[in-house]
Amino acid sequence: MKLKVYADRMSQPSRAVLIFCKVNGIDFEEIKIDVSKRHQFSPQFKEINPLAQVPTIVHGKFKLFESHAILIYLAGAFTGVAHHWYPNDAFERAKINSVLDWHHSNLRFGATKFVHNTVLGPALGLPLNPQAAAEGEKILSACLDKLESFWLKGNGQFLLGSNRPSIADLSLVCELMQLEVSNEKDRIRILGPHKKVQQWIEDTKIATRPHFDEVHNILFKVKEKLQQQQSVGASSGTASSIIKPTSQSKM
Amino acid sequence: MKLKVYADRMSQPSRAVLIFCKVNGIDFEEIKIDVSKRHQFSPQFKEINPLAQVPTIVHGKFKLFESHAILIYLAGAFTGVAHHWYPNDAFERAKINSVLDWHHSNLRFGATKFVHNTVLGPALGLPLNPQAAAEGEKILSACLDKLESFWLKGNGQFLLGSNRPSIADLSLVCELMQLEVSNEKDRIRILGPHKKVQQWIEDTKIATRPHFDEVHNILFKVKEKLQQQQSVGASSGTASSIIKPTSQSKM
Repeated sequence: MKLKVYADRMSQPSRAVLIFCKVNGIDFEEIKIDVSKRHQFSPQFKEINPLAQVPTIVHGKFKLFESHAILIYLAGAFTGVAHHWYPNDAFERAKINSVLDWHHSNLRFGATKFVHNTVLGPALGLPLNPQAAAEGEKILSACLDKLESFWLKGNGQFLLGSNRPSIADLSLVCELMQLEVSNEKDRIRILGPHKKVQQWIEDTKIATRPHFDEVHNILFKVKEKLQQQQSVGASSGTASSIIKPTSQSKM
Repeated sequence: MKLKVYADRMSQPSRAVLIFCKVNGIDFEEIKIDVSKRHQFSPQFKEINPLAQVPTIVHGKFKLFESHAILIYLAGAFTGVAHHWYPNDAFERAKINSVLDWHHSNLRFGATKFVHNTVLGPALGLPLNPQAAAEGEKILSACLDKLESFWLKGNGQFLLGSNRPSIADLSLVCELMQLEVSNEKDRIRILGPHKKVQQWIEDTKIATRPHFDEVHNILFKVKEKLQQQQSVGASSGTASSIIKPTSQSKM
């Protein structure tokens, strides 16, 4: 009963689950569900997940969705998963659950609202809304402040002062990686003041390489495409010239 | 090390944690943090929870916030908690986690957006926004459809086809109880078409009585007050006359 992961690498929770499987040597099959083509609403996929969300896993007869629930399940179901991803200790586990819950209504909410309303909306059939983007940025920036001053407090490199990453680090960093597709000016304005957050993103990348980069490759390709479009716009005077020709940033 | 629960009964996740403690005979002290008076931002409370959120628990030296994380922690930390609230079985647990995660970005998001923008906003220093209320209602109604057609599928009375409530039932029903403070016309329009959801709310109330009613008493008092205000408005021609003089509905 090989694990099946239904995912779209353009979805940040899909990326977190894929990286987790690869880093932990879980034998799985990745099945692409192209959200931009609305494949999550196909009758075939809705038989697997009637709520039409990715990522979704099928493990034998067991079907599950919601990335945090999936990560917790996988950490328990596969013996090869290193302890630090979701420790057995009740207190450590409770703290990780707390970050994951906070993520939903805070970091995810802000980051998604910003990125969808500045860049990705049209690919999902949604309009770009500058007012919603500004609201998203405000929430996102407040969340980055809280990451910097609270969740990343302590001596360790990772969330909750830990020396090793947990599923929360992976989930939250994948969320922030969405900003790669934003224009460079926006990304620098938002992430720039948060040095600890930048270092933590980098440390999480290092701890999960080469899988982190491989799974995120699609984002860098989209970024490159967008930059080319913007460069054309800039040369005709319609886009900002601040966008640098980097295809993969360290941020 | 008696458990301390910092809560505001006007907050739906606070109510879920309080009811859980009472139903399971957990010995605890309730400390009121009045959110309408911004007491969550007091220096004393921010020492306990720098993110200024309720509910927050302190158990010995251990501090925790985010209601889902708290409910999961309490279910494991207190031996008297009945198994059905958060079963040990990995598959059942994963499914409950999945509902809880879904709750965050769906039911909570829609219900809060609707209630804050129709009724509760001013008490929290926020304006009422009819457009945001309409968006909230749309999300909330879509979530109620999904509860009806998917999460409440099966033979049991509770979520995931279970015969006994889990922490997910408690959390989601407390969320929907916010609608008690909405005007009757809105509440009937939103909940009316969802018979299974109405029955499930009722079953969850019955399974957790008398604590459910006792902890929700504050909501019924607020509702009564609002209805009196609206009646005054109606007699002077400014409010709908459809609001019935019930102080506690079965919905």
